[in-house]
Order: sequence, then C-alpha cells, then structure tokens
Amino acid sequence: MGVKIKMPLKSPEEYLESIKRTVNLYMFGKKIDEFWNHPIIKPSINTVMKIYELAQMEEYKDLMTVKSHLTGKLINRFTHIHQSTDDLIKKVKMQRLLGQHTACCFQRCVGFDAANTLYSVTYEMDKKCNTDYHTRFKNYWLEVQEQDLMVDGAMTDTKGDRSKRPKDQADPDAYLHVVETKDDGIVVRGAKVHQTGFLNSHRTIIMPTLALRPGEEEYAISFGIDTNVKGITMVYGRQSCDTRKTEPDELDIGNFKFGGQEVFVIFDNVFVPRENIFMNGEIDFSGELVNRFGGYHRQSYGGCKAGVGDVLIGATALISEYNGTDKASHIKDKIVEMNHLNETLYSCGIACSSLGFQREAGNYEMDMLLANVCKQNVTRFPYEIGRLAEDIAGGMICTMPSEADIKSEEIGPLIEKYLTTCEGMCVEDRYKVLRFIENLTMGVASVSYKTESMHGAGSPQAQRIMISRQVDLEKKKNLVKNILEIDSE
Amino acid sequence: MGVKIKMPLKSPEEYLESIKRTVNLYMFGKKIDEFWNHPIIKPSINTVMKIYELAQMEEYKDLMTVKSHLTGKLINRFTHIHQSTDDLIKKVKMQRLLGQHTACCFQRCVGFDAANTLYSVTYEMDKKCNTDYHTRFKNYWLEVQEQDLMVDGAMTDTKGDRSKRPKDQADPDAYLHVVETKDDGIVVRGAKVHQTGFLNSHRTIIMPTLALRPGEEEYAISFGIDTNVKGITMVYGRQSCDTRKTEPDELDIGNFKFGGQEVFVIFDNVFVPRENIFMNGEIDFSGELVNRFGGYHRQSYGGCKAGVGDVLIGATALISEYNGTDKASHIKDKIVEMNHLNETLYSCGIACSSLGFQREAGNYEMDMLLANVCKQNVTRFPYEIGRLAEDIAGGMICTMPSEADIKSEEIGPLIEKYLTTCEGMCVEDRYKVLRFIENLTMGVASVSYKTESMHGAGSPQAQRIMISRQVDLEKKKNLVKNILEIDSE
Amino acid sequence: MGVKIKMPLKSPEEYLESIKRTVNLYMFGKKIDEFWNHPIIKPSINTVMKIYELAQMEEYKDLMTVKSHLTGKLINRFTHIHQSTDDLIKKVKMQRLLGQHTACCFQRCVGFDAANTLYSVTYEMDKKCNTDYHTRFKNYWLEVQEQDLMVDGAMTDTKGDRSKRPKDQADPDAYLHVVETKDDGIVVRGAKVHQTGFLNSHRTIIMPTLALRPGEEEYAISFGIDTNVKGITMVYGRQSCDTRKTEPDELDIGNFKFGGQEVFVIFDNVFVPRENIFMNGEIDFSGELVNRFGGYHRQSYGGCKAGVGDVLIGATALISEYNGTDKASHIKDKIVEMNHLNETLYSCGIACSSLGFQREAGNYEMDMLLANVCKQNVTRFPYEIGRLAEDIAGGMICTMPSEADIKSEEIGPLIEKYLTTCEGMCVEDRYKVLRFIENLTMGVASVSYKTESMHGAGSPQAQRIMISRQVDLEKKKNLVKNILEIDSE
Amino acid sequence: MGVKIKMPLKSPEEYLESIKRTVNLYMFGKKIDEFWNHPIIKPSINTVMKIYELAQMEEYKDLMTVKSHLTGKLINRFTHIHQSTDDLIKKVKMQRLLGQHTACCFQRCVGFDAANTLYSVTYEMDKKCNTDYHTRFKNYWLEVQEQDLMVDGAMTDTKGDRSKRPKDQADPDAYLHVVETKDDGIVVRGAKVHQTGFLNSHRTIIMPTLALRPGEEEYAISFGIDTNVKGITMVYGRQSCDTRKTEPDELDIGNFKFGGQEVFVIFDNVFVPRENIFMNGEIDFSGELVNRFGGYHRQSYGGCKAGVGDVLIGATALISEYNGTDKASHIKDKIVEMNHLNETLYSCGIACSSLGFQREAGNYEMDMLLANVCKQNVTRFPYEIGRLAEDIAGGMICTMPSEADIKSEEIGPLIEKYLTTCEGMCVEDRYKVLRFIENLTMGVASVSYKTESMHGAGSPQAQRIMISRQVDLEKKKNLVKNILEIDSE
Repeated sequence: MGVKIKMPLKSPEEYLESIKRTVNLYMFGKKIDEFWNHPIIKPSINTVMKIYELAQMEEYKDLMTVKSHLTGKLINRFTHIHQSTDDLIKKVKMQRLLGQHTACCFQRCVGFDAANTLYSVTYEMDKKCNTDYHTRFKNYWLEVQEQDLMVDGAMTDTKGDRSKRPKDQADPDAYLHVVETKDDGIVVRGAKVHQTGFLNSHRTIIMPTLALRPGEEEYAISFGIDTNVKGITMVYGRQSCDTRKTEPDELDIGNFKFGGQEVFVIFDNVFVPRENIFMNGEIDFSGELVNRFGGYHRQSYGGCKAGVGDVLIGATALISEYNGTDKASHIKDKIVEMNHLNETLYSCGIACSSLGFQREAGNYEMDMLLANVCKQNVTRFPYEIGRLAEDIAGGMICTMPSEADIKSEEIGPLIEKYLTTCEGMCVEDRYKVLRFIENLTMGVASVSYKTESMHGAGSPQAQRIMISRQVDLEKKKNLVKNILEIDSE
Repeated sequence: MGVKIKMPLKSPEEYLESIKRTVNLYMFGKKIDEFWNHPIIKPSINTVMKIYELAQMEEYKDLMTVKSHLTGKLINRFTHIHQSTDDLIKKVKMQRLLGQHTACCFQRCVGFDAANTLYSVTYEMDKKCNTDYHTRFKNYWLEVQEQDLMVDGAMTDTKGDRSKRPKDQADPDAYLHVVETKDDGIVVRGAKVHQTGFLNSHRTIIMPTLALRPGEEEYAISFGIDTNVKGITMVYGRQSCDTRKTEPDELDIGNFKFGGQEVFVIFDNVFVPRENIFMNGEIDFSGELVNRFGGYHRQSYGGCKAGVGDVLIGATALISEYNGTDKASHIKDKIVEMNHLNETLYSCGIACSSLGFQREAGNYEMDMLLANVCKQNVTRFPYEIGRLAEDIAGGMICTMPSEADIKSEEIGPLIEKYLTTCEGMCVEDRYKVLRFIENLTMGVASVSYKTESMHGAGSPQAQRIMISRQVDLEKKKNLVKNILEIDSE
Repeated sequence: MGVKIKMPLKSPEEYLESIKRTVNLYMFGKKIDEFWNHPIIKPSINTVMKIYELAQMEEYKDLMTVKSHLTGKLINRFTHIHQSTDDLIKKVKMQRLLGQHTACCFQRCVGFDAANTLYSVTYEMDKKCNTDYHTRFKNYWLEVQEQDLMVDGAMTDTKGDRSKRPKDQADPDAYLHVVETKDDGIVVRGAKVHQTGFLNSHRTIIMPTLALRPGEEEYAISFGIDTNVKGITMVYGRQSCDTRKTEPDELDIGNFKFGGQEVFVIFDNVFVPRENIFMNGEIDFSGELVNRFGGYHRQSYGGCKAGVGDVLIGATALISEYNGTDKASHIKDKIVEMNHLNETLYSCGIACSSLGFQREAGNYEMDMLLANVCKQNVTRFPYEIGRLAEDIAGGMICTMPSEADIKSEEIGPLIEKYLTTCEGMCVEDRYKVLRFIENLTMGVASVSYKTESMHGAGSPQAQRIMISRQVDLEKKKNLVKNILEIDSE
Repeated sequence: MGVKIKMPLKSPEEYLESIKRTVNLYMFGKKIDEFWNHPIIKPSINTVMKIYELAQMEEYKDLMTVKSHLTGKLINRFTHIHQSTDDLIKKVKMQRLLGQHTACCFQRCVGFDAANTLYSVTYEMDKKCNTDYHTRFKNYWLEVQEQDLMVDGAMTDTKGDRSKRPKDQADPDAYLHVVETKDDGIVVRGAKVHQTGFLNSHRTIIMPTLALRPGEEEYAISFGIDTNVKGITMVYGRQSCDTRKTEPDELDIGNFKFGGQEVFVIFDNVFVPRENIFMNGEIDFSGELVNRFGGYHRQSYGGCKAGVGDVLIGATALISEYNGTDKASHIKDKIVEMNHLNETLYSCGIACSSLGFQREAGNYEMDMLLANVCKQNVTRFPYEIGRLAEDIAGGMICTMPSEADIKSEEIGPLIEKYLTTCEGMCVEDRYKVLRFIENLTMGVASVSYKTESMHGAGSPQAQRIMISRQVDLEKKKNLVKNILEIDSE
C-alpha cells in the first residue's frame, strides 16, 4: 500500500512511545496505569497512529503533509495553518481519507481547528488590545509543528443550569475560569467534557464555550497546556459496548482495530504559565473565538463523517452480497440513497472550504454560513444512513449469537450451518460484517458516527442560530422588493 | 397502584415458577443452567411477569383480561381470540400500556398473533381440504387459556441464499421442514431466528416464513410445541451492552428492571405429535397464514412501540428539565414532534383495528392494508424519535463516566459537582435518565425500539409489497376516468 | 351506478334551484348576477350537487344518510349530530368517498363540524350560565335537517396585526364583533375569510377565531345567519388558473367538472336576530368552541384529502401506463409511497374517530389529540404525494401545448403525432390526465389539495400547540420515574 | 445600481432588436406574429435581457464576463468555455445572481452547458474517429462569442413508448433522427420538448436524449442550427396562470416583470449544413455526450434555483413582517430551515465545481458524482422550501380577491380595510408579495421553481442511475475488508 518515505515527521511508533507518560486517569472507578496498554483505550490510540502512518506514505503525501508557512518544512497537515482555499479543501479530503481508513473519530481535528482559530483571533486581539497573544501562540504552535505533536482542543464546559449565564451559576466552576492570577501565570478551575482526543494528545488548547459578557471576564480564557500537568484529572467515559473490547474474543467488537473514546476532564486549580495564555478576559473576542472554532470544526464533519459513511456503505453493500439480496432493486436504490446523503455531506464540507477567505492574519477560513449548513446536515444524514444500513443488513445484527458460541465445539458447527447463505460466502466474514454494522449503528462506534455527529462542534440549534445570523435576510427582502418595485425603507 | 383481585389467572410468581424447567440453552459458548437466575436474562423475565402482574390489577382489568369465547371464563387477553373490533382496539391499547410499563418488548404478542391467525386459517383449510386442523388448534389453545400459558410464535427461517427459493437451497434445512413422517407425528429440522420470547415461553407456535409453491410442501408446516422438547437448542443472541447487566452496578444498564432478548433456535430432528400439527403441506394456505400473521403482528407494533415511545418522550422531557433547557422554544417544539410521530404510530394501530372485519371462523381480523401502513411507519418514526431524544439529551449520554466512577470515593464527589445542573436536581436522577436514554437509543433496548421496529413482523419491503397488493389501483384509476370521462377498458 | 331511492332529502336539482337567490357577490371588480351560471363558480356548485346526488343512491345510503336523533327521520349525514363513534368513523368514510368522486373540496364539512361543536358547547354554556343557547341551536338545526340545507361555517377573521390581541388592534373590526345590541338582536361588523362554501350555502354559522379574554367579550360571538342577508358582501377569491374555466375549451381546466372556491366575506353592520345567537360574550367558552370545531374539522381532513389523494394516485398510475413506465421498479415504488402516505392520513382520521367519546350533551366528539395529529400530517403528506405525482407524470404537465393547439387543424395532427406513446393509448386521454395532474399539483385544485391542507382548520402551528396541550407530559415523566425508581414530586 | 461600462457585448436593447425575426410559432391554436410584443412571452424576454444588462454593469463584471480563451476578448460568461475550476465556481455564482434578479429561469444555461460538453466530446471523437467535429464546433462557437448570441440547447425527445428503444418505436420520429443524407448536409425529423429558451435564442444546439446502441446510428446526431430555419415549428406550452399576463392588471401575475416559458419544437425535415454537424452516428460517444451535458446542467441547478430560493425566502420574510408574525419563534425557525435547504443546494453546486477537472481538450468539467447529487437535492428541497413559504404566508395566497376587486371603487376600500395588518404596512405591498409567493408556489413560476427542478436536466431517477454508476462500491467494500481483514477477491 505505498512506499514509506523519509521525512521529519513522527512515525506511528514514535508517537506511541511519546504518549507513554503518567496521567491522572480513572475508569470504572479505578486509577489506570499505562493506559496505552488498556484494551478499551488501545483502538483509540491505533486510530491516532493511523494518522502518523498515512502521513509517511507516498500516495497520501499530498493530502497528509504540507509545507509549513512558518518554517518551510514538510509538516503533518494536522499542524498546518491554512494558507489557501486549496488547503481548506485538502483538509476535508484528508479527513474523509482518515474516516475511510478507521471508520471512527481520529481525534486530531479539534486541536487543528483550535489552532487555526487562535491564529487569526489572537492577531486581531493584539491589534485592538495591544496584547502579544499572536506571538505567544505562534511560538507555542511552532513547537507543535517541529515535534509533530498531537494536540487536542477543549471547549465544552459542564454548564450547570443551562438557563443561566456563567456568572449566575450556583457553582462558579460550572464554566472553567480563572481563580487566581499570579505573576507568571494563572490558576484555573472547572471541567471540560466530551473530550475525544485529550488522553491521546500531548497538549490541549482550552477555549471558552460561549460568548461572554461584561462581568464574565474570568471565563474569557484560552490557553495551551500539556495534558498531564498537575491538577488535571481525567475520567474515561462509559460508552455502548465498551467492555466488549476487554473480552477474549475480538470479533464481537465489530471494528476491532480502531475506535474513539470520550474523556471527562477536571481542572482542579491548574497552573498555566503566562506564555501559554492566548486570551484572558477579552470578552469582546470570546464570541468570535467560539464561532470561528465552531466554523472550522463544522467544516471538518463534512469530511470525517463522509469517510466513515463510505465504510458503512461498503459494509452494507458487502452484507447484501453475503445475504444474496444485492440484486434486488429496492436494495440497490437504498444504497444509492445512502451514497446520495453521504456525498451531500461531503459537498457541504467542500463548498464551505472552496468559498473560504483570507483573514487579516494571513490564514484562510472556511465560509461561515456554509460550514454551519454542513454540520446541520451532519446532525441528520448519518442517522438516516445508519437506518438504511440496518434495513439492508437484516435483523441478524442484533439477534446473532456471540463469537464464543460460533467458536464453541459443541454448538459452533450448528450455528455455522445456519448462518451460511450464498455459495462461496465465508460465515466468519458475514459475522464480521454484521458485527461491524452493529458497531456503527448501535455499538461503540455509533457514539461517534451518530451522537457525536449530533452534538460535536455544537448541537443542531447552535448551527441554526449561526445560520440565522449569517444569512442576510434584509438583502433577500430587497431582492423581492426590487422585482416588485416596493420601496425599501 | 391499584388493588389486586382474585381471578383464575397465573400470578407473576406462579408464572416464574412454571418456567423453571430444563432447556438446552447456550450463551457465550457455554451451557446455561437455571436461566431464570441469569442476570442477562432476568430483565426479560421481569417483563413477562409484568404482563401477569397488570392482569391482576383492577385498574387494568378491562384491557388486560377478557371473557373467553371458548369457555366463558375470564382469561388474560394475550390468550384471547378476538371477537370484535373492540377486542382489536383493546389489544393495541394493552400493548401501549405494557410498553409504557416496561419500555421494552414484552414478547407475548407473537404467540397471541399466531393463535388468531391459525384460528381462521385452520378453519378455512378444513373447509377446503377436509382436514381437522381447526379442532386440533382449538384444543391446543384451550389448554393455553386454561393454564394462562406464555406462548411464543416462530416464523423467520435462516433462509440461506435469499435470492433462491427454499427448495433450491444448497442446504435444505435453510428453511425448517419435515424430514420424516411417522404414524403419530412428524420430525422437523431447521432453525428459527430472531426469537424474542422463545426462552420465556411454555410453548411456541411454528409457522412457515413465506408463501410456498408446488414442490415445497415439506416447508408448509405449522405446529405447536413445548419450548423444551428434545432436539431444540437455543443460543442466546449477543446484543449491544448486554454484559452491563452482569456488572455489579446496575445504573449503567439504563433500564435496570426490564428488557428484551433474542434467541437463535435450532430444531435438530424434533418430533411433533400429530395432534399439535396445524398445517402440513397445504401450500395454498401458506401465503395466507404468513400474511395474516404479518398483519396481526404489524398491528401490534402500533401499540407497543408507541408505549415505549411514551417512556422515551417522558425521559427526554425529564432530562430537559434536569438540564435547564425545558423552557427553550426549540426544545418544546422537538418534544411536540416526538409526540406527533408517536401518536401517528398509535393512530395507525388503532385505525387498522377499528376497521377490522369478521372471518368465516367467527374471529376478527385487522384491516390488512392499514396494518401494513402502520408497520411501515414503525420502520421510520422510532428512529426519528430516538434522534430527537439524543438531540435534547445532549452529548452526555455517550461521554459520561460510569456509575463506578460516580460512586468512587476518590473522584465521585468531583464528578457529582460537575454533573450538577439546576437547583433541586439530584445528580443520580440525572445519571439514571441519561443512561436510560442511552439504553433506548444505542444500548440494549435500542435493539427492540429501533432495529426490531425495522425488521420485526417483516422488513420494510415486506410491507411495501403488501401495500402494493392491498391497494386497489384499478379502482383508483377508475375514479379519475369517471371524472375525466375516459372510457375504461 | 346504483338505483335512486325515495327519501325526504333534496335532490341535486332541488338544491340547485334553492340556491338561486340574490347575493351581493363581486368578482374581478364586478358585481355578479346569477352566480350559478358563472363558469368559474359552476364546478363548485357541481361539487355540492354531487353530495346531494350520492345521498340518493342506494349503494352509498349507509354512509351518506343517517337517522336523525332529533326527528328519527332519514337525513343527509352532513346535517347529523354524531351519536356514536361509528357515526364519527362514517363521517370520515363519507368524506373520503366524496373526495374520490370530486377530487376537490366539497365544502359541506365546515357547517357540519360547526353544528356538532355548538351542540355540546351551547349545552355546557347553558348549564353554567343559565342561557338558552342549546334550545336555540337545536331549533335552528332542526330546520337544517328538515330542509336538507347546505350550511357553511365561518371562523377566520382577517386579524389585522397578528402580534396583537383583538382588543388592541388599530381597527376594531379586524375581528368580527358586536357593534350594537338591540332588543331583538345584535349588529355585527367585521370580515370572515377563506370561506369555501359560503356562496353555495343557504346558511352559515359564525364563530370566533380564537380564545378570548376579559375585555374582549364583544368578539365572543357565534350565530347562524342566511348567507344573503343585508350587509353581507362577498368577494370571490382569485386562484391559480381560475380563468381557464371561462375559456371555450374545457380540457385545459384539468378537472372540468368539479372544483372548489374561496370567498372573502364582509359583514358591514349585519343584524342577527336574537334566536339565532348561540354565544354572546361568554369568553370562558370561546376557547373551547374554537378547539372543538378545530378538532372536528381536523378529523375531517383525514377523510377528504385521502379521497382526493386516491384520485391523484389513480391519475399517476394511469399516466405511467400511458407513458409506458408503469413496469419500472422505481415508479412502482413511488406509487407505493404515495399510497402509504395517503393511507396514513386516513388512518389518523379513523383513529381519532374510533377513540371518540360522548359529551354531556349526548353527542360524540373525536379524540382531540389524534385529530390534531391527523391534521398535522395533512400539512405535510399531500405535498409529498403531489411531488411524487409530478415526478412520475413527467415534465409534460407544464410544457404541453394547449387544447386549442391540439385541436388546431394546422398543427394539431403534428402535436398528436408527437404526444403518442404506447400502442392503444389515446392522445386525448393522455392530455386529460396530464392536465388533471397539473390541476391538482399547481392548478386551481392545488389550492384545496395543498394550501388548504396546510391552513384549513388551522395552520400547522395551531395543531402543534394543541398537541403540546393534549399530551400529558407529566404522566410520561412518571412512566420513566416509575421504571427508574425516581421519586416524583 | 452600478455604472455601465463600454465593452464589446450586446446591450439588452441590441439583444431585443436581434431576436425580432420571423419564426413559425403557435399559441392557443393561432400563429403568433411579432412574438416579442406578446404579453405572455414578454416577461421571458425581459429575463434574457437582464442577462445582457448585468453583463454591462461594473459590479457584476467579474461574474458576468470573462476573457475568451479563443480570442482573448471580454465575452459574456454564458458563451465561455471553462478554463479552470474557478470558472466553474463563477458559473454557479453567476446563476445564483441571475436567479436573485429574476426569480425565474433565465434560459441561457442550456446552450452554455451544451457548448462546454461538445467542446470536449468533439475533441475526443476527432481523436478516435478522425473526424473534424472539434474544429467545426469551435468555428461555430467563435461566432457565438463574437456576436454575444443567445444559444439554446435541445435534448429531450418525445420518446413515444418509454419502455421501448428508439429503433423499436412504432413511429421512428419519436426520437429526432437523420432521415436523409445529402452532399452538403443532412435532413432531420422529430421533436424536442421542454424547450425553455428556444424561442428567445438566436441559435440552438441539438443533442441526442440518451446513449444509443448499434442500429440506432441515425439517432446519434448533434448539430447547431438557427432557431428560425425552414421546417421548424414551435408550439408554446400552456402553463399555470399564463393568461394572467394578458389581463389589464399586472399585480395578479405575481412576478410581473420576469418569467419563464416552455416551447414544444417540431423538426419537420429540417436541413442542417455539414459544417454545423457535431456528431453523426458516433453511438459510442452519445452516452458520454448525454452524461456530460447532464452533469454540467445538474451543476447549474445548484446556482439558479438557490438564487430563486433567495427571493422566495426574502418574500416569505417580508410577508411575515407584513402579517406581524416575524417575531414568532416557529416562524423564525422555519425561515432558518428554508435557508438551510437553499444553502445546501448551493453547496452542492459549488462543491461539484470546486472538484472539477481538466479534459484532454483543455476545458474544465465539474465532478460528475457531485453534480448528480446536487440535482437530486434540487428535486426535493425547492418543494419543501415552497411548502414552508405557503405555511408562513398564510391561506391568503389562495383566497385573496383579485387586483380588480381591490382597485374597484365600490368594494376596493372595504377590502383594503380588511387586508390592513400592521402599522406602517402598505396593503398594495402586502398584495404584491402574496401574489409573488403564489406565483412561485402554484403560479407560472412554480413551473420553473418546482416541476422544472424535478425534471430539468433529467428526472430524479436519471440522477440515481448516475450516482450508482459514479460511486465506486468496490472501493468502499475494500475499505471495510481492510479494516476487518477480509480477503478481497
């Protein structure tokens, strides 16, 4: 599958070694040591390793790597600051590629999107507020490029009572905030949730979760930090079918190689050195930071989820062959519909990239309106694609015996006899594909293919608010007024 | 919750005792003894016990019990042969009630629907073929009514290569069939899959899975049988999150009381006594048997899934309160939509019942067209209701730590702090409801709420075929020809 | 088509004679005399005549006629006060029948639904307020039954600024109201719009358009009135393709026999005699009146629109034959979908009837929740059915030459040559069916099949508000609390 | 609105003069002289004039004009051969712009798309078949660029019995074909239907309607021709509300300035000179020609229909202001949905352009898969956008009196009184906007906004076939095989 070429990028193995560090992680109420060997966590690390692996392959060089505008060196695209709409388009293509190779969330987009956001927001803050955030951030990010670091981004606070503002919460820590300011930095407290890549990342970039208002300056905070510093506690999220990964048999997992995860991260009086702070109290820029990050990340979903969709469509086409139904017109038509929806997602990802524009800082940003339109479709179509996959796969995806039964000497042969379908079909292959579809429609991968498609990068209503803001209704009213010769006020 | 009254019906405890029998059951490759104590199976038995419990409560007497037309005694409605459209309507109402009380599949409808099907089909066979199936069946069913037995129905064969007819399969056992005829009965071989209630039932009724053609007489077979006779092997189906039920903590299960299950049942040379055979080779009636059962069972889904939908809607409304989002207009509107879809399902269940008709045998049958329309909607709306539930619940349903973490002395208090939302809200309640929604949208209950809604009682295409057959297109063409004065041929 | 039987019902011809009265009607800025001869109006009168015609046919006797509970005489069902759920179901079946025979709105439901509403509301008002409205109404309605009168109902006011209450409008007449009280009656002013049957009716029943509040007593007014009394001015609504009905050729009309219409009715100081007033100032009952009428009328749509849908489906099936595409799997599947949606509408109409209940006044009312669910689906599915009809019909429905071209000696033969499709097909029949589909999807009948489906009996949001009120969310929350053992407050 | 600049392009007036030629046109059975003065046709000519007008305005110069790769001169973009993906993107933006300015079909895309198709197909034919089609076509097109000619494209044959191939039709003319070959050219016979721009164009390019097979060489014919040559007869298509344009009042038209049209064109032994023939018998290239044209034209719909959608959204927002409902949350949410759907269409148009590629002939072509995905969405979303517009506008769009009524001295003031809503609102403006929405949802413009969206550039099934061909299912199966370690054959 392509020849490995020599470049100044981390190999997958180097990445693996580099994240073998001590973190404060809990799972099922117990502290976890050497998390990189934990069977529930391993698939998630494999997925990140796949990023490093593809970046070393000649055939994916154009998508996976790019020349840094800071250093001129060849870097992993995930550490790049977009220099053109072509970069934006290649980002989406790279994400689709990785979705196709892993069928899950590969976690590295969040930090990527955070970096591109901060690049322009810090520039604009500096210009208006006479701060030096942009330089700080560039220095911080140079290290990331040079060392090919895996960086997460953390935005979502736990939010307490959602009908109240941050400053009106009973517990002020419901939103992460500055609790102490020192000469050389600050101390923060709070929690960031829904963190897919935190554990597997060397670093993370913290951002506020919403636009802040006067009196909420302590919440307008953004900074970079190593994921294993003092005061950070991670608790591993419990997901559908997670413990199948700890069982002796592996086929029941579905996707036994790759997978996502979610971590609940608590910041208990964590110190942040001054040079890593990229926003601190500038409430006027907090909304813009949130929106731009949201935009970049909503663009991302048009790539990655289309890639996962490709694998699910492939699995569905394959199972219809195994079932002997692939010639039926209604099956073929449903597969067309799955593809149609999947390509619509991709189209939206490409379109918002193609219509991107240059910020004053020099970097490129996707079209905000179309990025939100993209994500809004992502909150709908993967569900329908999954529903059609279940339709075509048949009820067997949720009534089939376990791998242990099939491998049992006593009853295995009987089950095999009855799971046999068409000539030339291998029962184990059928079993694998059925479990794979189960994995994506209701198992652990459904979390990232469906629920994360709903809520990641903002829930549907967040996109609707942005669409309503981005659309110029007055201009549209004037279009009809012009045609009808109605005087505009 | 109502006063228990004395009646000649099994109590839940009596039911439990009565199914404590030896069966040949495997799970995870191992033989299971005393299945009624197995934590994965117990919720499923609890669900059936709920049927027996409600039937003893005064407030549900009208729905849950009815006077037998065979004996005049008060019987559990699940053993009734419908005597009016009112009976058909009450069936659907009873199913909604049970869905509301268990939030899962309660398994007793299949045998119920099989019995009502055989009641009329055996009558018509006898009339045409001079057989005595109807008397046999009545005798068999009288015992069911008298002893308040739990009866399953089994239709779906494993089907081998779906592009081929039963008689053309490489393995003739791909469809269950008669392999030997003896003086006092027959011997059958094959397998029946997607069996929800088999294990918890005293008896089951076997039916063919499709309309059979000349040369396929051996497959046109229907009979009643005890679920633990010699030659029957059951293998427990592996489902999303099943092993959570074996963990020490129970909250992660979601619905920790009730649940469904699926069993793969192999018939390896099973003997069936003559008096329990209700069809044997009458291919001309096989299609009608399949269609009528399909019709009754598609009607059922308009009740049970609406009942489960009620609980999911309740859980969604509750979590929006706990999150502090219940006043937001878009949340309220989505809950309206969930209800709208759920009530549309129920409307279809009621409509096909209300327009039922009397068969020559004297019993009542639902409207075939509308029953298929009902089920077709069931293959769509629970998915959308589930999607909206995920939308409103928030990403926490799939990123939240485990119960063990929350109960951990070390990190539990921290997690509790950050899961706290509105004043007066109890974190454990929020946790329970989030896990409950997870259970129904991607956990073990999603199997019955979504995938079974897709495939149970026939996959979507089966309903479309029936709709196309039941609709009188010629009549509709004539309507327009009349208006337009076009001559009809 | 059936034998005419003798009964005390108006014949179609008697109806026609009886509406030949002087009314104050304008169309295209001109006063219209002898409206019954006007080509734009005639199809609408034909449609009402069809009601009278079918009521005289033996084969429709059971649906179209019923024994009055007031007089014991056989009456047209449209003048009946429902005495059972069976009556409610037959109402919906009758409506579907009429939709099938006319493919448009037949206008008589509004008064029918208003009467059934007032029957119970006046009873309850009298009980609480010591009024005699119920007796007045019964006397009024007895005449209707005895003379088989066509009665309209009028609810929708022009509403002025919709963000303001009736009493806060700049023009107090934005909602019809009492402007003077005399000894023997009252004087009212205002306008009622979207009046389909007003012109063709002998009488109309006026109702308020929303629930009124203290200070708005003058708007809480309901009464019966002849449609041609002094002070009433009607202006005929302009609709898509209306003037095709005035052209010499008739095929371009599409449905050249039947059709609907809409009239804008202005009440300019109209006197209403005391005995015809059924509500006057009882604001506490105004909401209930509006809701009940809404409920009955939303039930109606599950019948009539399904009937129109039947004809459109028939036309679509026919045109696919004429085009030679009827064997294509995607065409057949789309026709299944059209039927599925159409029968779902009907199911909702039947279900809310079947679950009806008796009011204290003795009459029966449909289930309010399911009636709103029914109408909500009606605001969606006819649009999708129409879209599929356009898909199957092909672009010819909107690019085809006129009838005059086809009949032209010069170019007619050439057009006929090129509109010829399959062997045995008659070009004129194809032309008729294409124009008929145009009529229902974008012509004058689309107004009643689509836009009226949207707004008639209340716009979609009105149903959503009712659904949210009718659904017992607290009960649903308790269902999940019971299962999860969460304490209810 | 911008300053006119001097360029070698036709002015709108010059265009108008240039199409004043004698054509053989029929409407309503009569021959039409001086069609450019006909009130039904005029709006359609206005629309084309708008293209010429905008091309002369400085502010639209970048979109509307471009440097010819053939001559280096500034030409109207509609006569351009795409030289980059940027050209493809600008095409879509230009189409959206024109949709925004006219709210209808502006007719010039068909010839534009045909030219870009022929440019590459003729090149490839020449290479394989040693023909000189490419040179001929370039010469032909040079004249178009030099004279800024309006060119139509004609593809759709009448097709006779659609279940039969061209060569198997009872009437061989059901598909346009060569009936005689002469030394200096050919003679063709047949008809091309659904011709929007034919009448207003100087020239047209004829193309086959489907991929042809051996024995069907006479149907594999493409050529350019003037629209008024001997043997061509046009019959004007009859459309919803067309005659409103002939009435004395203009407001009832809705869009009283711009509009589309459809012409039925018969070729009765038409001679085509040799130098204008671009394909003649090369069946192997016929499919490619059809597909490429389909692709370019399906791309187009992502621009033009989004532009029309903009105006409809503007009209809907405006009427909600006039009605006083613009602050209601459900109204705002529906407008968000309209925009979301509209921008999804545009995204698909942009995406297939952005991922375009260069053909061997040097010109650029859109991505075929995404162009089909684009059009497939266009067959759905305008219908839903229109449905939501009807929802928000209210029933008044189809029950309102005519302009003549409103202007009547007798009843005008009364109607005006009752159509008054919010303070500051002008009744005539409200009237205009309501009629405009009627025009787009059921009037003459609905033909191009909805039915043409369905069938133009191929019916939905045509796109589904292309999607199924363009998607690489084998590659997708291999993705899952790789992950699951299933051997590929």
